[in-house]
Amino acid sequence: MPSSSTPLPGPLSGLVVIDLTRALSGPYCTLQLAELGARVIKVESPEGDEARWYGPEFDGTSVYFRSINRDKESIVLDLKEPEDRGIFEEMLSVADVLVENFRPGVMERLGFDWNRLSPRFPGLVMASISGFGQDGPYRTRAAYDMVAQAMGGIVSITGTEEGQMTRVGVSIGDLAAGLFATIAIQAALLERVRTGKGSRIDVSMLDCQVALLENAVARFHATGQVPKPEGSRHPLVAPFDIYQAADAPLAICVGNEAQFAKLAAALGRPEWVSDPKLSSPGRRSENQAALKKAMEEALKAKSRCQWIAELEQAGIPTGPVNTVADLAADPQVLARGMLIRPKGERDGMKYAAMPYKMSSIPPDRMHRAAPAVGADRDAVLSTLKEALPHPKGETWPA
Amino acid sequence: MPSSSTPLPGPLSGLVVIDLTRALSGPYCTLQLAELGARVIKVESPEGDEARWYGPEFDGTSVYFRSINRDKESIVLDLKEPEDRGIFEEMLSVADVLVENFRPGVMERLGFDWNRLSPRFPGLVMASISGFGQDGPYRTRAAYDMVAQAMGGIVSITGTEEGQMTRVGVSIGDLAAGLFATIAIQAALLERVRTGKGSRIDVSMLDCQVALLENAVARFHATGQVPKPEGSRHPLVAPFDIYQAADAPLAICVGNEAQFAKLAAALGRPEWVSDPKLSSPGRRSENQAALKKAMEEALKAKSRCQWIAELEQAGIPTGPVNTVADLAADPQVLARGMLIRPKGERDGMKYAAMPYKMSSIPPDRMHRAAPAVGADRDAVLSTLKEALPHPKGETWPA
Repeated sequence: MPSSSTPLPGPLSGLVVIDLTRALSGPYCTLQLAELGARVIKVESPEGDEARWYGPEFDGTSVYFRSINRDKESIVLDLKEPEDRGIFEEMLSVADVLVENFRPGVMERLGFDWNRLSPRFPGLVMASISGFGQDGPYRTRAAYDMVAQAMGGIVSITGTEEGQMTRVGVSIGDLAAGLFATIAIQAALLERVRTGKGSRIDVSMLDCQVALLENAVARFHATGQVPKPEGSRHPLVAPFDIYQAADAPLAICVGNEAQFAKLAAALGRPEWVSDPKLSSPGRRSENQAALKKAMEEALKAKSRCQWIAELEQAGIPTGPVNTVADLAADPQVLARGMLIRPKGERDGMKYAAMPYKMSSIPPDRMHRAAPAVGADRDAVLSTLKEALPHPKGETWPA
Repeated sequence: MPSSSTPLPGPLSGLVVIDLTRALSGPYCTLQLAELGARVIKVESPEGDEARWYGPEFDGTSVYFRSINRDKESIVLDLKEPEDRGIFEEMLSVADVLVENFRPGVMERLGFDWNRLSPRFPGLVMASISGFGQDGPYRTRAAYDMVAQAMGGIVSITGTEEGQMTRVGVSIGDLAAGLFATIAIQAALLERVRTGKGSRIDVSMLDCQVALLENAVARFHATGQVPKPEGSRHPLVAPFDIYQAADAPLAICVGNEAQFAKLAAALGRPEWVSDPKLSSPGRRSENQAALKKAMEEALKAKSRCQWIAELEQAGIPTGPVNTVADLAADPQVLARGMLIRPKGERDGMKYAAMPYKMSSIPPDRMHRAAPAVGADRDAVLSTLKEALPHPKGETWPA
């Protein structure tokens, strides 16, 4: 009997994830798994996930929390209490994946570290997300998103051309860790199909920032030059920036010579093509300030909307600088179903969908709102044995 | 006999990926798969991946290209030529995954769209990455990273408090699409274990930006307020920002009341704890400008290094604002092996590793430099039948 806590239909149907995570990095990871069809059971301490208290709220619950905990179940367990520990172990015996984002050392203190779990649950994939990882000199340090962004170097290359550094507007320190952890978990599940064995996964927020800096790291080592913030322009390619039209800014990106010729023609400056200062992406990048000035001189003749239509027609990648409000009304975003209202959410409330368009994900499936603390206790306990028949995953798929 | 093109050891060992992608989003996706142990065969047009021409270069090859195409093989095929089409089809018959990032319509014109491939290769997972997706009003439009960042809203919330918007310093429009595509591909492979069938995956750069905006999208719909750039501070929580010490800036993040009390004590301002203007994360966020001023007044008494030591001791998440040069010398980054020099790269050259620390990834495995155009043609052709024994994936794991 499908209960209210039936997982979403999706490619990971049948997989069970025990989710000990709080705040953002871990919950964003398990949101991916839930969105892909896994059953995600959020195990909360009696106080609940701390993100339940982050503002703003409506209907008594944090919007922040609701956004990333939809389509999951919740059970409250006190992992220091014998009875609750027993329930947790029973859950582990039918789980495929355990995800946690405590500070390194906490799982050991609870007696649920990999060395103790692995012999008992040999098919279990256990993923830990932490600020700096399970080893190395900083392993015991705490990190939140802003620390990962700052230490990870992304702040040092984000900001104005004058050098004022800023944060990335989304919590990329947490989100990147959530995405890389999801990739590692699925890789471990694929490996388990071959080997029958689970894996230990150790994802660090700092490592994930390094991985995102791939080009900046390579450039620094190749040239010795320390990358800096460059405003809205690309560090290597031009034109590849935001430009002002008569009324509003737009992005224009030119990736090759054919596109540059089309741009020059569209802006009424065909002579640019034979200008030696503009004869390659590298030359244009060196002279990007003068080029930008000349482009904006031409662009001020028409409105953004007119330019986008004309440049698009010419095959030049372009688009407006959208606010979140613009985005929420964008025809493509709406056509792709990227804004969803889970069952149980009030009219007008919408969340970002995850971007998985694939054969086995029906576009019209119904999402569930994030659970109240412990809301699924009965469902979890009663279905623990019947509904989850694959012990330790060795027999998955059943 | 392991040839020079033996894939890295890793959890995806035995899987074969045919990679038609160019530039960044697709190659970053297939880099993840290669890093996890899959065999990635990059199929290049006779001109080669356009990213081979992005500056800066050394030893005659683009650093940009090398950074994201290590640990892959390259074969040149002209997919309009009958003989090369035959080789490509032979490759598909032993492949698990096909990834492409042409504009929608190109695979149809080549005769290799899903409707034609799926009946012939029923186990194939085919992933397409594009600017706006395979359907919707913008499907035929071109997009590069800056267009996705601008249209996707992240630019509108990244920048200075005064409202000067900037790009995210890394190409998050491409990288996010690469990561979400990797997740979808692995989910499809897991599903195939259960069903024996491949899947069609459609990842849009714009959709991926929406997915990264999760909290901003939810906040906007809950409150009606349009999120704006906030400099380096968190939009909802304070203190959660970059602050100036005597000599240099540092990040300080306070997530709860206990941490705030410790911070107040460490800065010699214990009275803050009983100040009603600072009594909750929300109140502190409302009064963050005054709080920041008071904090920087206290912080100027000591150097960044001293403050980091003291705040860390007190358990408050903190860290320096690192440049890429700082990061490249950071003890934790080095201890975690996050900078790698593939075999065939000159001394001193280093690339960002991907952040997968898991049981089946040996920390000391040797990476290979990115291939020259077509460098692995013989290896691919000669091993096509013998080395890749699992037709259409139905029998994977062999």
